[in-house]
Amino acid sequence: MDLAQRSCGSAPCRLSPSEAAALQAAVPEWTIEAGDRLTRSWQFADFVGALAFVNAVGAEAETQSHHPDIELGWGRARLTFTTHDLEDGPGLTESDFILAARIDALPATQTR
Amino acid sequence: MDLAQRSCGSAPCRLSPSEAAALQAAVPEWTIEAGDRLTRSWQFADFVGALAFVNAVGAEAETQSHHPDIELGWGRARLTFTTHDLEDGPGLTESDFILAARIDALPATQTR
Repeated sequence: MDLAQRSCGSAPCRLSPSEAAALQAAVPEWTIEAGDRLTRSWQFADFVGALAFVNAVGAEAETQSHHPDIELGWGRARLTFTTHDLEDGPGLTESDFILAARIDALPATQTR
Repeated sequence: MDLAQRSCGSAPCRLSPSEAAALQAAVPEWTIEAGDRLTRSWQFADFVGALAFVNAVGAEAETQSHHPDIELGWGRARLTFTTHDLEDGPGLTESDFILAARIDALPATQTR
């Protein structure tokens, strides 16, 4: 499954644990935390490199109208996705995995 | 004391709790956490506004060669300063407060 080529409908649908695990296999650098968050960390040569990556992520997030939580520091960045607008609280949806795959495909994910 | 107009020497010097408290009074929007971190949160109208602020912070941090830990999400940003290169572990130095004051002076800190 090439997640980066997919697009989500307007109604988010919580993934079951087995569905989430199946999608996680398509983005193996990412980790599912606590069943409802998808996270990955990167390292960079300096602060400027990390910030450039965050800007590339931000541009991609805007195109999908779906935004990660970002931790940014000198030489490092961490992204965490979860979907907040589910009826029964935050959880993982296909949108989280699609954007993870799109971020993996960014040229700016090249690190030291 | 106008912290934003000061500049630090090359040898970081850990502030005592009373020294840190005195400097914190000059940046009252910031909070000292656990004695060794200086933190402040901002809210913005959207993700793009928050990211623009983080870019302004990054540019300022580069000028001072001192960088915060940044949490960035939709409509919000949080900065945390601490000085890592002290002999006896992370702690607060004048550099942390100077950069806090410089960030408070950024036009991009205008929020919703």
